[in-house]
Amino acid sequence: MAKLIEIADAADPRLDDFRDLTTADRRPDRPGGRGLVIAEGAAVVRRLLESPYPLRAVLGVRRKLDELGDRLADVDAPVYVTSASTMSDVVGFHLNRGVLAVADRAPAPTFDDVADSSTVLAVLEGVNDHENLGAMFRNAAAFGVDGVLVGPGCADPLYRRSVRVSMGHVLRVPFTSDVVWPDSLSDLRRRGFRVAALTPRADAVALRDVCAAGTGRIALLLGSEGHGLSQSALDAADTAVRIPMASGVDSLNVATAAAVAFYELTR
Amino acid sequence: MAKLIEIADAADPRLDDFRDLTTADRRPDRPGGRGLVIAEGAAVVRRLLESPYPLRAVLGVRRKLDELGDRLADVDAPVYVTSASTMSDVVGFHLNRGVLAVADRAPAPTFDDVADSSTVLAVLEGVNDHENLGAMFRNAAAFGVDGVLVGPGCADPLYRRSVRVSMGHVLRVPFTSDVVWPDSLSDLRRRGFRVAALTPRADAVALRDVCAAGTGRIALLLGSEGHGLSQSALDAADTAVRIPMASGVDSLNVATAAAVAFYELTR
Repeated sequence: MAKLIEIADAADPRLDDFRDLTTADRRPDRPGGRGLVIAEGAAVVRRLLESPYPLRAVLGVRRKLDELGDRLADVDAPVYVTSASTMSDVVGFHLNRGVLAVADRAPAPTFDDVADSSTVLAVLEGVNDHENLGAMFRNAAAFGVDGVLVGPGCADPLYRRSVRVSMGHVLRVPFTSDVVWPDSLSDLRRRGFRVAALTPRADAVALRDVCAAGTGRIALLLGSEGHGLSQSALDAADTAVRIPMASGVDSLNVATAAAVAFYELTR
Repeated sequence: MAKLIEIADAADPRLDDFRDLTTADRRPDRPGGRGLVIAEGAAVVRRLLESPYPLRAVLGVRRKLDELGDRLADVDAPVYVTSASTMSDVVGFHLNRGVLAVADRAPAPTFDDVADSSTVLAVLEGVNDHENLGAMFRNAAAFGVDGVLVGPGCADPLYRRSVRVSMGHVLRVPFTSDVVWPDSLSDLRRRGFRVAALTPRADAVALRDVCAAGTGRIALLLGSEGHGLSQSALDAADTAVRIPMASGVDSLNVATAAAVAFYELTR
């Protein structure tokens, strides 16, 4: 394991990356935001260590650092150990996961990078809830979706809460915000993707029938739970698809609907 | 619309059902718990009004009560109107949904009631998170699951947070805790249900193959996200089924996994 650096004083400037996390993890263009990528808990820290994001430091209580064991052996950044109460004082809230890691953002892949290397893509518009966005990445990873295009109106996938709800998969699944809206959808079609817009509308084709109708590259377009997809996004799609549901039921949570669609698309 | 009763004083005893909701909605056997069923927001209040739960009262700001309009016409319980700030003072926290309804619990159906009237059943063990439990009911309703058996270690489906996350569907989908564990699983088998236990284990049969292998009554056994199903529950099932997932990925959130399984089982 890396050599642990013990820190007793919450004011120690070496812990500044972990200070007041509720503002520090905001994007650099937001007040107080430094745009750091923050991983909470052993499972997510592990994913950060395996990711391309340049690690800046790890901070934890001894028991949780021990849990990471070997994974910390090759770490080229400082690993700080402190008490649970000092940790709370630094981060600004009680953190029951006991270990954190912080990294810089890495250059995002381009649209071409993500599109070229994908057979199944998720394309998001207006997914502005950090937890839904994180859950979407967890579900994309579970079903082997190759990449995510983050369209207009979406929350920041690298915000701490998204990272946590994604179980760290936002650090693994390639994504980019390098999109022109809705032109990138036509671009996907030119590259041979069928663009399927998921909607609760009754006149849409059942998901299963779309999947049965062809194989090949597919881009699934997903909107926000409240407002759904914009008309221009719907217009730019090849097909509108729906998940058949019992009558009288509100649509599913958007991340749950995505999971069902990913399941069907990647069968 | 029902005649609105204006209330200006947060201390008015007619609002006692809505007081300090964070304790009042607990089960009667818990400290401070009165076991009331509480619906928050217009959509969930509508479902409560349509449910068999005996309505005690409605409380809202005028704009939200107007939104319910006709639905309040036949209401046989008092409808109180007040300001947003008085509402916050009464319930004990800021409530941005602007309308609440409160009802008594109704006698739960028996095991026989739920089993006899179902073709597809969800059977839960150890689902102790109120939000996962609520999401499970929302997903069960979406895919037309006929009933839910609430086994040992589960949270209370009628707790306010479950009701909210379920979008009120916990008030519609028949459920009961009238189960003997794991004997009720054998009882289901005797009634002609195939009992399929959902697990991430690699040696389980893919969900799709189980669905392809037969029609007829099926009971899907779902455990908690952390610990999964108990050995005795697994032993009492006919088959262990899994949702095929990409390698190296943690299991899905339990309610999301349930949604995918319900989708496949109710196709």
